[in-house]
Amino acid sequence: MSDVNRQWLLKARPTGMIGPEHFELVESAMPRPDFEAGQVLVKTLMLSFDPAMRGWVMDEPSYLPPVPLGEPMRASGVGQVVQSSNPALPVGTLVQGLVNWQEYSIGDPRHPLAPPTPLPAGTPPGMALSIFGSTSLTAYFGLLDVGQPQPGETVLVSGAAGATGSVVAQIARLKGARVVGIAGGADKCQWLREACKVDEVIDYKREDLPARIAQLCPEGVNVFFDNVGGDTLEAALANMADFGRIVLCGAIAGYNDETPRPGPRNLMNVVTRRLRMQGFIVIDYLARANEAVAALAEWVAAGELAWREDVQEGFENIPATLQRLFDGRNQGKQLLKLADPE
Amino acid sequence: MSDVNRQWLLKARPTGMIGPEHFELVESAMPRPDFEAGQVLVKTLMLSFDPAMRGWVMDEPSYLPPVPLGEPMRASGVGQVVQSSNPALPVGTLVQGLVNWQEYSIGDPRHPLAPPTPLPAGTPPGMALSIFGSTSLTAYFGLLDVGQPQPGETVLVSGAAGATGSVVAQIARLKGARVVGIAGGADKCQWLREACKVDEVIDYKREDLPARIAQLCPEGVNVFFDNVGGDTLEAALANMADFGRIVLCGAIAGYNDETPRPGPRNLMNVVTRRLRMQGFIVIDYLARANEAVAALAEWVAAGELAWREDVQEGFENIPATLQRLFDGRNQGKQLLKLADPE
Repeated sequence: MSDVNRQWLLKARPTGMIGPEHFELVESAMPRPDFEAGQVLVKTLMLSFDPAMRGWVMDEPSYLPPVPLGEPMRASGVGQVVQSSNPALPVGTLVQGLVNWQEYSIGDPRHPLAPPTPLPAGTPPGMALSIFGSTSLTAYFGLLDVGQPQPGETVLVSGAAGATGSVVAQIARLKGARVVGIAGGADKCQWLREACKVDEVIDYKREDLPARIAQLCPEGVNVFFDNVGGDTLEAALANMADFGRIVLCGAIAGYNDETPRPGPRNLMNVVTRRLRMQGFIVIDYLARANEAVAALAEWVAAGELAWREDVQEGFENIPATLQRLFDGRNQGKQLLKLADPE
Repeated sequence: MSDVNRQWLLKARPTGMIGPEHFELVESAMPRPDFEAGQVLVKTLMLSFDPAMRGWVMDEPSYLPPVPLGEPMRASGVGQVVQSSNPALPVGTLVQGLVNWQEYSIGDPRHPLAPPTPLPAGTPPGMALSIFGSTSLTAYFGLLDVGQPQPGETVLVSGAAGATGSVVAQIARLKGARVVGIAGGADKCQWLREACKVDEVIDYKREDLPARIAQLCPEGVNVFFDNVGGDTLEAALANMADFGRIVLCGAIAGYNDETPRPGPRNLMNVVTRRLRMQGFIVIDYLARANEAVAALAEWVAAGELAWREDVQEGFENIPATLQRLFDGRNQGKQLLKLADPE
């Protein structure tokens, strides 16, 4: 085994679009686990890319501390235990956790947020990070706990072809709601219609978003699940039904702005229509992850959930792969494969 | 009795600041109640002025239909029954309801929203519209049902010297919260501190609002009750504690804008801090009005609630009195007296 650990370190904090220039590829010494403390050495197999990572590099207090300059970029992923004296995590175990942008990481069972967690037997790394990953948990708890759609209600989803949005749209359908998805481009819209069985799809790149929402939701939107923010949020606010719920999951439209963009001009609709607009972070629901995974597994087994994995390759391509999320090139859950399990 | 009914009709819909030029003073025929249907004739004694009235003149669908052009301006107030064959509302009864901007109105017990409701014995018209009026109900239900402050939490209130805000601030104090009030001008701030016993007061006209909120709320704001919107909302959003609640009651800062102003640039904080931002309209709580009035009456009797009434006079001054709300000249609940009870 090599004694070199390649890492992508955060070199500079971006003010606009995040890109390879904000990271530095270095060769470090192989990390040494503290075997007496139960630590293991984990070889990274596959990395997950999520819009929230754009927030993690900002030097601002948030729900997680900023990634320090000169440290490997924070990232969740799947790895394989390659050194261990921990009977709960023997060599060969496939685990999920914060492996970060590096070939090898220390897996610490006492990590407060993301201890290395064995994958259920037979779960491929891609599935663990896509349909059973944090984006699906985000969809499950955000929609059901925060949005609380009722059968027959209309659920509008932005970023509907994304890893989170597509699962939101399908869970809403499975719970008896009428679903309108917003996505960009013919391919994504077709997939939503055909594979995800979404009732109506709006291609925001080709259609007039506020007008189309009004047309497709004549009784108003009861639940809007928003990943996008900006003009999309404003268009939805103009079309909410009385007592509607807006689940604020993220605002990818503005993540790479150099200066924060203004909020919607029609926030007063929150008052006049008695709306509830609520933000949430999936980390708060990790204690209930099993509930979501069990439900998702049942739907997957029944063939009720479609998902796509966009799997890039190559350690050198890691920073560029993150950008795919922000220009909408990704087709489904963005992943990058470094190695196959041994 | 005169057979002339003076009225202020809505003549034009304002695009900017509302003013006397949008109304027309006319002399109409005295209205004739349908006595068989239980209607009564009500002489207006006192009018209530509320920021929400600015929304009622807009030609946009909202929680109430727009006031039609050529009709008397909608307004709540207190009147006295002067013609009646309804035993439940005999001549002389003081009633509360939508009397509108006119000297006489028809009181209809079947009115869906605001049937003429007798004042509790001994309640002066001013108190019925101020401390027991809709602004206090707004404060009670908005703070307790929507904001849900817990003892020891920090509650921030904008428009804190206003009719709604001052009652919010005091109920929050009575429920064991620490209260920070935002108001404009030394007189209002002094009244909040001394009469309302608010813990901390910020004079937004003299102080740096975001910096002062940060200084006075080092642990963050748990509940923000907002009447103002605009920069005030943005300043509060920057200082919310995790899992904070923002009660959106109104946004007076923007009511007279010719074009809607943009929303806060830091709406993303709703996500990262897991905030709940919720709008409400007091009309939805009218069925529970007795609960609020009973609690308010108990606090008033115990000397625990301070309030101020800003009583203008003169039928011809009605439109100009509405403007006082929007330039902050009003000192407490804005009223206008037309006559004393007989």
